[in-house]
Amino acid sequence: MSDIRKIAVVITARPSYSRVKSVLTAIKKHPKLELQLVVAASALLDRYGSAVNYIANDGFDISARVFNVLEGENLTAAAKTTGIGILELSTVFDNLKPDVVVTVADRFETMATAIAATYMNIPLAHIQGGEVTGNIDEKVRHSITKLADYHFAASENARDRIVRLGENPDMVFNTGCPSIDLAHEITGKTELGFNPYEKYGGVGSQPDLSNGYIVVMQHPVTNEYQASRKQIEATLEAVRKLDKPALWFWPNVDAGADGTSGGIRAFREKHELENVHFFKNMKGDDFLELLYFSDCLIGNSSVGIRECSFLGVPVVNIGSRQNRRDRGANVIDVGYDENEITQAINTQLSKKDRLGSNVYGGGDAGEQIADLLETLPLVFHKTISY
Amino acid sequence: MSDIRKIAVVITARPSYSRVKSVLTAIKKHPKLELQLVVAASALLDRYGSAVNYIANDGFDISARVFNVLEGENLTAAAKTTGIGILELSTVFDNLKPDVVVTVADRFETMATAIAATYMNIPLAHIQGGEVTGNIDEKVRHSITKLADYHFAASENARDRIVRLGENPDMVFNTGCPSIDLAHEITGKTELGFNPYEKYGGVGSQPDLSNGYIVVMQHPVTNEYQASRKQIEATLEAVRKLDKPALWFWPNVDAGADGTSGGIRAFREKHELENVHFFKNMKGDDFLELLYFSDCLIGNSSVGIRECSFLGVPVVNIGSRQNRRDRGANVIDVGYDENEITQAINTQLSKKDRLGSNVYGGGDAGEQIADLLETLPLVFHKTISY
Amino acid sequence: MSDIRKIAVVITARPSYSRVKSVLTAIKKHPKLELQLVVAASALLDRYGSAVNYIANDGFDISARVFNVLEGENLTAAAKTTGIGILELSTVFDNLKPDVVVTVADRFETMATAIAATYMNIPLAHIQGGEVTGNIDEKVRHSITKLADYHFAASENARDRIVRLGENPDMVFNTGCPSIDLAHEITGKTELGFNPYEKYGGVGSQPDLSNGYIVVMQHPVTNEYQASRKQIEATLEAVRKLDKPALWFWPNVDAGADGTSGGIRAFREKHELENVHFFKNMKGDDFLELLYFSDCLIGNSSVGIRECSFLGVPVVNIGSRQNRRDRGANVIDVGYDENEITQAINTQLSKKDRLGSNVYGGGDAGEQIADLLETLPLVFHKTISY
Amino acid sequence: MSDIRKIAVVITARPSYSRVKSVLTAIKKHPKLELQLVVAASALLDRYGSAVNYIANDGFDISARVFNVLEGENLTAAAKTTGIGILELSTVFDNLKPDVVVTVADRFETMATAIAATYMNIPLAHIQGGEVTGNIDEKVRHSITKLADYHFAASENARDRIVRLGENPDMVFNTGCPSIDLAHEITGKTELGFNPYEKYGGVGSQPDLSNGYIVVMQHPVTNEYQASRKQIEATLEAVRKLDKPALWFWPNVDAGADGTSGGIRAFREKHELENVHFFKNMKGDDFLELLYFSDCLIGNSSVGIRECSFLGVPVVNIGSRQNRRDRGANVIDVGYDENEITQAINTQLSKKDRLGSNVYGGGDAGEQIADLLETLPLVFHKTISY
Repeated sequence: MSDIRKIAVVITARPSYSRVKSVLTAIKKHPKLELQLVVAASALLDRYGSAVNYIANDGFDISARVFNVLEGENLTAAAKTTGIGILELSTVFDNLKPDVVVTVADRFETMATAIAATYMNIPLAHIQGGEVTGNIDEKVRHSITKLADYHFAASENARDRIVRLGENPDMVFNTGCPSIDLAHEITGKTELGFNPYEKYGGVGSQPDLSNGYIVVMQHPVTNEYQASRKQIEATLEAVRKLDKPALWFWPNVDAGADGTSGGIRAFREKHELENVHFFKNMKGDDFLELLYFSDCLIGNSSVGIRECSFLGVPVVNIGSRQNRRDRGANVIDVGYDENEITQAINTQLSKKDRLGSNVYGGGDAGEQIADLLETLPLVFHKTISY
Repeated sequence: MSDIRKIAVVITARPSYSRVKSVLTAIKKHPKLELQLVVAASALLDRYGSAVNYIANDGFDISARVFNVLEGENLTAAAKTTGIGILELSTVFDNLKPDVVVTVADRFETMATAIAATYMNIPLAHIQGGEVTGNIDEKVRHSITKLADYHFAASENARDRIVRLGENPDMVFNTGCPSIDLAHEITGKTELGFNPYEKYGGVGSQPDLSNGYIVVMQHPVTNEYQASRKQIEATLEAVRKLDKPALWFWPNVDAGADGTSGGIRAFREKHELENVHFFKNMKGDDFLELLYFSDCLIGNSSVGIRECSFLGVPVVNIGSRQNRRDRGANVIDVGYDENEITQAINTQLSKKDRLGSNVYGGGDAGEQIADLLETLPLVFHKTISY
Repeated sequence: MSDIRKIAVVITARPSYSRVKSVLTAIKKHPKLELQLVVAASALLDRYGSAVNYIANDGFDISARVFNVLEGENLTAAAKTTGIGILELSTVFDNLKPDVVVTVADRFETMATAIAATYMNIPLAHIQGGEVTGNIDEKVRHSITKLADYHFAASENARDRIVRLGENPDMVFNTGCPSIDLAHEITGKTELGFNPYEKYGGVGSQPDLSNGYIVVMQHPVTNEYQASRKQIEATLEAVRKLDKPALWFWPNVDAGADGTSGGIRAFREKHELENVHFFKNMKGDDFLELLYFSDCLIGNSSVGIRECSFLGVPVVNIGSRQNRRDRGANVIDVGYDENEITQAINTQLSKKDRLGSNVYGGGDAGEQIADLLETLPLVFHKTISY
Repeated sequence: MSDIRKIAVVITARPSYSRVKSVLTAIKKHPKLELQLVVAASALLDRYGSAVNYIANDGFDISARVFNVLEGENLTAAAKTTGIGILELSTVFDNLKPDVVVTVADRFETMATAIAATYMNIPLAHIQGGEVTGNIDEKVRHSITKLADYHFAASENARDRIVRLGENPDMVFNTGCPSIDLAHEITGKTELGFNPYEKYGGVGSQPDLSNGYIVVMQHPVTNEYQASRKQIEATLEAVRKLDKPALWFWPNVDAGADGTSGGIRAFREKHELENVHFFKNMKGDDFLELLYFSDCLIGNSSVGIRECSFLGVPVVNIGSRQNRRDRGANVIDVGYDENEITQAINTQLSKKDRLGSNVYGGGDAGEQIADLLETLPLVFHKTISY
C-alpha cells in the first residue's frame, strides 16, 4: 500500500467548480495526496458553459468524464439523471479505487456521488453541508450530510447545524468556504483587468462600462419551475428600465432551466435591450473580478451571499433561493416584483462605502481541507451521536 | 380533483412486506385512500422468497412491478441496483401520479424510492425512521429521514431522534411499529396451528417439534460481507451441537447474501444436521405464530428485537446488526462466537416466564398511519428546524 | 381476448412523425385496431422542435412519453441513449401489452424499440426498411430488418432488398412511403396558404417571398460529426451569396447536432444574412406546402428525395446522406463545395417544367399498412429463408 | 500511434468463453495485437459457473468486468439486461479505446456489445455469424451480422449465408469454429485423465464410470420458457430409467433458466436418481475430454453439433435449439418425448464406429482469426452489396 491517498472529487456543474477550485489546487500540490478529478453532468455540456474546458485550461488532469444528464423539461428527468449518475459513477469508482470521495454542496445530481461512494464503502467527504435555503437543495444537502463521513462546513453556523444533525463533532470542521479563497486573491486588484466583450463574446448590446455597471445572474428555482418564466420577466423589466449597463449571465441547468432561458429569449425578441449584454459563462476568477468592480449584483446566485459578502459588493437578492443562508450587510432581499427590485437596486447604487465580512472564512479553506484529507482516519462506518 | 388520496407504497423485500402489511390493509380499507402497491427488487425474486406471491395471495392488487436487482457479488452491484431503481420508479410514479409515496425502513434500495419521490415533488412518508443500528443501513435510514416529509416512527426514542434531526415535530409521529399489529393478532392462539414441514416443504431433516424447537434467522451484515461465511459457521456449529430441533430460515438478499448462503450450503455438505430443517420463506403471520410457540429465536433478525419483544419470545441476538435498537428484556446479545452463542441459548431455554413489552407500540400502527395519510397536509417543501 | 389489435407505434423524432402521420391516422380510424402512441427521445424536446406538441395538436392521444436522450457531444452518448431507451421502452411495452410494435426507419435510437420488442416476444413491424444510404443509419436499418417480423417497404427496390436479406416474402410489402400520403394531399393547392413568418416566428431577416424562395435543410452526418461545421459553412456561403430568399430549417438531433448548429450560429454572428430566415420547425403539412411552392430545396434531407420526387420540386442534394436512395429526376447531387452547390442551384432555378414520380408510392401507404396490421398473423418467430 | 492493435473481446457466458478460448490465446501471443478482455453478464456470476474464474486461471488478464444481469423471471429482464449492457460497455470502450471489438455468437446480451461498438464507430468483428437455428438467437445473430464489419464464420455454409446477407465478401471468412481448436487438442488422449467427482464436486450419486457413461446438457429454449419445465421432465424421465451412469450439467442463464433449473430441482426431490450426478460447471478442456470418452451426449447443447461432430461422439439432440445447424453423421434428432429420447439413446449406444467430420474446421481457427485481426483494414463504414 502506498501512503499517498487518492482523493476523487466529482464536479457536476460550472458553479461547483469555481467553488472548489482552491481545494483542487491544494490537493494537487499536496505531497501526500493524489487528485482524481471526475467531471460529470452539466459541467461537460456546451449549453451550460462547458466547465470542463476551464478545468482543463487551469491545468487539471481529468480522470473520468461522466455523461448523465437526461434531457427533458420535467422533474422525472432530474430523478433519472441521478439514477444514471449512480450507474456511471460506481463504475468510475470501481476503476479509480479512491481512498476518499469528495462531493460538493447540494445539487440534485450530487446525490449520485454520495450514494455510489456510500454503497461502495468509500469514505465520503462533503463540502458546504449544514447550510439552510428552504428548497429541494436543502433536502438533498442534509440528506448527503447523513451519508458523509467527513464534513467541511463553510461557516460556524453550518458547522453547528451538522453537529446537531447527529454527526461526530470530530469529523465536522469549519474550514470556511473555498470559494472565498478565490475572492481573496482578487482583493489586490485596482481595476478590471480585461475587456469582457472581447474576451468572452456573448450577444446583445455592448454598453460602455467605464462609468460603472451591474451584473445579473438568476437561476430557476427547482420546486417552482413552471413559474420560472414569470419570475425572470420581473427582473428583465427592472433591468431594462435601468439607466446603467447590465452584464447578464445565463442560468445553469436545473429541471426548470428552459423556463428561465425561454423567458429571456422571448423577452429579447420583443424588446430592445440597449443596456444589456448577455454572457454564457466566464472563468471563475474573471467573474469574481467583474463582480468586485461592479456596482451591484442582481439575481439569486449564491455568489451574492458568499463571495460578495467577503468582497463587500452590494447585492439585490431576488426570491427564496438563498433563504436563511448566512449573509453579510451587503445584501438586500426582495421578492419577484419589478418595483421591489428597482427600489433595491437604487438603494444599493446610492451607497458609498463597502463592508466585507468573514462569515464564510478567511481565504485558506482549500489548504485546510487538503490537510484534513491527508490526516483524517479512513472510515465509512458511523452511527448517530444521540 | 377527487378527494381520494392515492398512496403509493413501495415494497422491496420479503421482510419489509411483513413489516407493513397492516398498513397496507388499513390503507386498502380506508374510504378516503386508494392503495397503489409497487413491488420491487428482491420482493419479486424466487430465490429471495417471492414476497410478491404472498402479497397477491393476501388479496392486494399490484399496481407495478419493478425489476432492478443487478446480479453481482460486490458492492458496486448494490449501488447500481439503486440507480436502476430510480430510473424505473420515476417512470412508475409518473404513471401512477400518487399523492403520497411511502417508503419503509432502511434497505439500501429504499433510497431509490426516496430519491424518485423527492425529485418529482411527491410528498414522501417514511416508516421506521429514527432507529439506530450502526451499519450502512443506519446511514441510509437517517439520510431518508432528511428527504421525507412525514415520519411514522416505531418507538418514542425513534420519534425523539427524528425531531432532533431537525424535522418539524408536527410531521413526526410515534405510531408504534406496524409489525406489532400482526404480532398482536397471534397472541390469542394457544398452539401452533399448522405443520411447517407440510405447509412449507423446505429441505433437511424433519425433527419432531412436539417437545419444543428453536428458530434461526441470520442475515449477512452489509459492511462486512467477506466475513459473512465465517460468521454463519459459528452459528451453524452452535446449532448443530444443540439437543433441540432447529428451524432455519435462509437470509434475504444483500450484497453479501451469497457469502452467508454459500456458508450454509458448504456446511450442509460436510456435516449431517440431524436436528435442522431449512425453510426458504414463510408467510409473515405463520412465521410469527411459529416464533410465538418456539423456545428461542437465534440470529440477527430485527424480528427478535421487535415482534419478539411484544410477544415475549426469548432471543439470542448475534453480532452488530441490531446494535442500539430499542429492545425488551427478552434479548441476550452475543458475538460471532460458538461458545457465547451456545451459552446464551442455554440461558434462554432455562427461563420460566415470558415478559412482553410495548416499546414498539400496542398493535394499531397500521390504522394510525392510514388515518394520518388521509389528514396530513400534502407538502414536499421543508426546511431544517434549527 | 378482444379482437381489437393494439398497435404500439414509437416516434422518436420530428421527421419520423411527419413520415408516418398517415399511418397513425389510418390505425386510429381503423375499427379493428387500437393505436398506442409512444413519443420518445428528441420528439419530446424543445430544442429539436417538440414534435410532441404537433402530435397532440393533430388529435392523437399519447400513451407514454419516454425521455431517453442523454446529453453529450460524443458518440458514447448516442450509444447510451439507446441503452436507456431499451430500459424505458421495455417498461412501456410491459404496461401497454401491444399486439404489434411498429418502428420507423433507421435512426440510431430506433434500435431500442426493435430490441425491446424482440426480446419481449412482441411481433415487430418496420416501416421504411431495405433502403440504402451508406452511413451508420444503414447498418441500423438492415440490422432492424433482421429483427423485424413484418416489413412495409417504401419502394419496389427496397422490397426486393429486404427479400434478398432472407426475409419471408410473405411478410414483405411495398406499400409505398407514408410520407407520400401527406404530399398527395398538398397537390390540390394553388398557392401558399399561410405566412410562414407570422405563423412560425423564427429569427433573422424576413425577405419578401412573392417572387419565389428556396428552402434549406441540412443535417449533420453521424459518422463524420467533427467535419459537420466545415460542411455547413459551404452551404452557408453559397446561400448567403444567392439573390433569392432562403428559408432555413435547423437540423434535428444527432451525435453531431451541435457541430452543425454551432456552425450556423457562428456564421450568423460574423455575417449579415439579409436573404435568410431561420425556422426551428414547422408542422409537417405546412412544411410540404412550403416546399411545393418553393423554387428549390437545398441540403441533405430525405424529404428532397422522397416527397419532392412525388411533388416534382427541384432539389440540390448535398453530400453522402442520401446516397443510393431511389430518386426521381428532380434531384441534382453535389459535394460539400460552395461552387458546386451554387451551380446546381442555378441549374435548378433555370428549369421550366416539373416532373413528379411514383417511385415512393401513390399516396395510400397509411391505409395499406393499417389493413395489413389487422390481418397479418401474429408471429415473432422466424428463420432466414436460405 | 502505435502499430499494435488493441482487440477488445467481450465474453458474456461460460460457453462463449470455451468457444473462443483459442482466439484469446492466439491474440495474446500475437506480437502485433494486444488483448483487452472484457468479462460481462453471466460469465461473472457464481450461479452460472463463474467463467471468470476459469478465465483468470487460464492466465488471461481481465481489462474490465461488466455486471449487467438484471434478475427477473421474465423477458423484460432480458431486454433490460441488454440496455444496461450498452450503458456499461460504452463506458468500457471509452476507457479502453480498442481498435477492434470482437463479439461472439448470438446470445441476447451480445447485442449490447455490437451496438456499443457500432455507435461509437469502432470496427466490429463477429465470430460464428451466418448460422441457422430458428429461435430468438437467430434474429440476434443475423442482426449482429448487419452491424459487424468483419465476419469469422465457422463453416462454408455460414460464410455463404453472410455473403447473401449483403456483406462485402472480402470481409467474410470461413475460419472454422475456434471451439474445434480445443477439441483438436483432445484427440491425442487415450483415456479420461481425471476423476470428475473429485475434481468438480457436484451433487447426487456417484455411479462407477469405468464401464461407460453418458453426458446430459439441456438449456431452456428462450422463446418457450414457460414450457421449459415440461421439456426437461421428459429428459429426466428418460435418463432416470437408463441403465447407464449419467453426468448432468446445469443449464446456463437465459430468460427461462429458472424453469429448467426448477424442473430439475423438483424432480430430484421426488425421485431417487441413482445413476445421475450433477455438475454446475467444468473447465472447457476437461468437459471436452469427458465428452470424448463418453458413450453419448444428450440434450440441446451446441457442443453436440459442433465439437462432437469433429470428435465423432454420438449425440441425441433434443428439440429445436440446434435446428438447421450444420451437423455431422454423429447426431440423432428427437422431440421433447421420453420414448423418442430413450430409443435414440439406445440406437447411439449400440453403434460400433465413430466418424468425425471437418464441417466446422480443422482446428486452427484461433490463429486464422488473430492473423486477420492484424491485417484487415480498420473500417466501420459499410453499405449493403446489392
